[in-house]
Amino acid sequence: MEHMSSLERVVTLEEAKAALDKFWRPKPNNVFVSASQAVGWVSAVEVKSKIDVPPFDRATYDGFAVRAADTFGAAENSPVELKLVGRILAGTWPKMHLRSGSSVEITTGAPLPPGADAVVMSEYAVADGESVKIYRAVSPGENITKKGSDIKKGQTVIGRLKQLNYLDVAVLAAVGVNKIMVRNRPKVAIISTGSELMEPGTKLRPGKIYDVNTTSLSEAVKTCGAEPVVLGIISDRFSAIRAAVNRGVKVADVVLISGGSSVGVGDITPRAIGSLGRPGVVVHGIAMKPGKPTFIAVVKNKPIFGLPGYPVSALMVFDQLVADYLHELSGVPRGRKSVVQAKLATKVLSARGRRELIPVKLVGRDGQKFAEPILKGSGAITSLSTADGYIEVPLEREIVDEGETVEVKLFWGSEFV
Amino acid sequence: MEHMSSLERVVTLEEAKAALDKFWRPKPNNVFVSASQAVGWVSAVEVKSKIDVPPFDRATYDGFAVRAADTFGAAENSPVELKLVGRILAGTWPKMHLRSGSSVEITTGAPLPPGADAVVMSEYAVADGESVKIYRAVSPGENITKKGSDIKKGQTVIGRLKQLNYLDVAVLAAVGVNKIMVRNRPKVAIISTGSELMEPGTKLRPGKIYDVNTTSLSEAVKTCGAEPVVLGIISDRFSAIRAAVNRGVKVADVVLISGGSSVGVGDITPRAIGSLGRPGVVVHGIAMKPGKPTFIAVVKNKPIFGLPGYPVSALMVFDQLVADYLHELSGVPRGRKSVVQAKLATKVLSARGRRELIPVKLVGRDGQKFAEPILKGSGAITSLSTADGYIEVPLEREIVDEGETVEVKLFWGSEFV
Repeated sequence: MEHMSSLERVVTLEEAKAALDKFWRPKPNNVFVSASQAVGWVSAVEVKSKIDVPPFDRATYDGFAVRAADTFGAAENSPVELKLVGRILAGTWPKMHLRSGSSVEITTGAPLPPGADAVVMSEYAVADGESVKIYRAVSPGENITKKGSDIKKGQTVIGRLKQLNYLDVAVLAAVGVNKIMVRNRPKVAIISTGSELMEPGTKLRPGKIYDVNTTSLSEAVKTCGAEPVVLGIISDRFSAIRAAVNRGVKVADVVLISGGSSVGVGDITPRAIGSLGRPGVVVHGIAMKPGKPTFIAVVKNKPIFGLPGYPVSALMVFDQLVADYLHELSGVPRGRKSVVQAKLATKVLSARGRRELIPVKLVGRDGQKFAEPILKGSGAITSLSTADGYIEVPLEREIVDEGETVEVKLFWGSEFV
Repeated sequence: MEHMSSLERVVTLEEAKAALDKFWRPKPNNVFVSASQAVGWVSAVEVKSKIDVPPFDRATYDGFAVRAADTFGAAENSPVELKLVGRILAGTWPKMHLRSGSSVEITTGAPLPPGADAVVMSEYAVADGESVKIYRAVSPGENITKKGSDIKKGQTVIGRLKQLNYLDVAVLAAVGVNKIMVRNRPKVAIISTGSELMEPGTKLRPGKIYDVNTTSLSEAVKTCGAEPVVLGIISDRFSAIRAAVNRGVKVADVVLISGGSSVGVGDITPRAIGSLGRPGVVVHGIAMKPGKPTFIAVVKNKPIFGLPGYPVSALMVFDQLVADYLHELSGVPRGRKSVVQAKLATKVLSARGRRELIPVKLVGRDGQKFAEPILKGSGAITSLSTADGYIEVPLEREIVDEGETVEVKLFWGSEFV
């Protein structure tokens, strides 16, 4: 009965987060990763270039390095003849100093010799062994890529807390960086509880269903920039749950445990966690549907979130309660396209005094976006096959009218944009 | 001189693709992957559910399974009393048949016993050992999730050629599927040539630059659903290039080789490839800027694409010439957000008779999206630090005016949406 009374201390989502705050705050960690594998990771520090790019004045095209002044007046029918004093290949360093009246053959990307200030493209020159005829004048700087013109030494190439995309890692390569300090991906242990659960790929026995939450929560965790650690299906026994959670707080930064948190005959998860140490369960029951039996515990300085067993419910509660902490740890921002506006297709009713989360399907009609509530609700095992996301009816609302504009929080990977 | 003449047979992009068509067509392959790892892969076959989900009528909430008709008339001040004949836990299979006047305690997710057609939630019932008082009437089907209500046996849960998202893999778990046949990711060998190139992380020597294309092309290849196989930096020597390409056609489905394809002193790549067997080089020179020295070869039934050495040029030519083949092999669709409309910020000039690709930066101004041409052009080593994508000026256009609406092909990972 003590247990029941703790359940009756239902709190709002904000109060639940404040209660956790007293015992645990997300502390990001950093790690070095190979720059070529860094796409998707978040920079922990600003990166400045230690070199100029290009590191020297270089020929933009194949041709002849010259002093531009020497070519003035050159034209198709009045070439200028210059002495040919050598050849510079890309990847080599010029040994000569170019004097007036001279030219050096040069390949694309090769460093300009000192003294030269322009390149005449091959098309406008004809060389023999001793000299070269120039058929077009060039101005100083022409067909040259100046040292540092692309990236200057000391220039910031990657800002701090930037999720790296493929251009970023290419820029890191250009400035010679092969490893970068990034926010480490938090590890999230995932436990599914329920004697009715079986692993996909096995033969379903009577009364059993396949475990979905291990898969769906693993993927949800990845979208927050975190790394799932699958601990598998655990039966509803006290000792099994206790052992699994104990392992979770050892191997991971955060533990998710779904199912088994309602006040049914099998409600032993919070008790099993409570037995692992202080403070144990700090919140049991949030004024939210689904998710009322949701709990939050802290054991060995690691947070443990108890989520509903129904997959869509688990995903919605994960999004409301857990996702922000993982984003904070990983540095990965919530996608800008994680929320879309739509018109509500049919009126929904909600109980005052609790936040209600309703899965919706997005449909386009008459050039407008509509959110159709999936009223199978938590009674359906998945609803996954149809839901694009969910809407939130706040505590103080009892009704949201048909046609009202709502914010749909998209499940990652939704086809609808 | 023979080589020069082949270069003068410059063809359009369409003609180049048609020339390749004669010798090579992309043939997708299939492979089984673990369903829990299948996000991002593309289904090779339709997947139908072999089970009903849920597989049986189940209790949506904790409570008492009843015949609904037995509860008619039950109310807060006039409970109906039923005989309590047992208890069904989730994960077990009921042994009893429920007769009129009886009730069975049942937990969330447990199978309904034959004879029962509704569940009274715990909140509306008080049980002692022998009987249960029901304080609220239920109608048939109430608080029950019907067998197959979420997914029906035989129902298609994944269409063919669907790129799997996280909801898809969760649905696969729900129907018990743990492996799925997907389009195999084509392997793409990536070779950078140029004696001036050095690997990032090493100390830059005079006249050298860091290799960017290995990194940027690897990432570009991944966005097409393909798997890069990095063969590294190869010097401009005939034998080294020949050996690298030979290795490429052995280990990969497609070979990319960047740099070394212009008609400079170091232009030995097409000849080295030509020496590997028929048909060898089938296109050398496309009427496109950048990318005129681009070539296409076929050796041992594998296509080899020669791309420019400049990173942005290489990415643009990759996108124009190679990306579609990789998308066809992997089944991964081009992202819907890969093209955005913008107004051209400044007039651009182009030569008639060639397709011109111009890197652009996207900027928002007065609520409109503008594409600013990056006129460093191919002369800049990267332009990567600023380019969001590129625009295409077709063969027949010589000028695109300021303010004209253009299609910007985004480099993947652009911040601008």
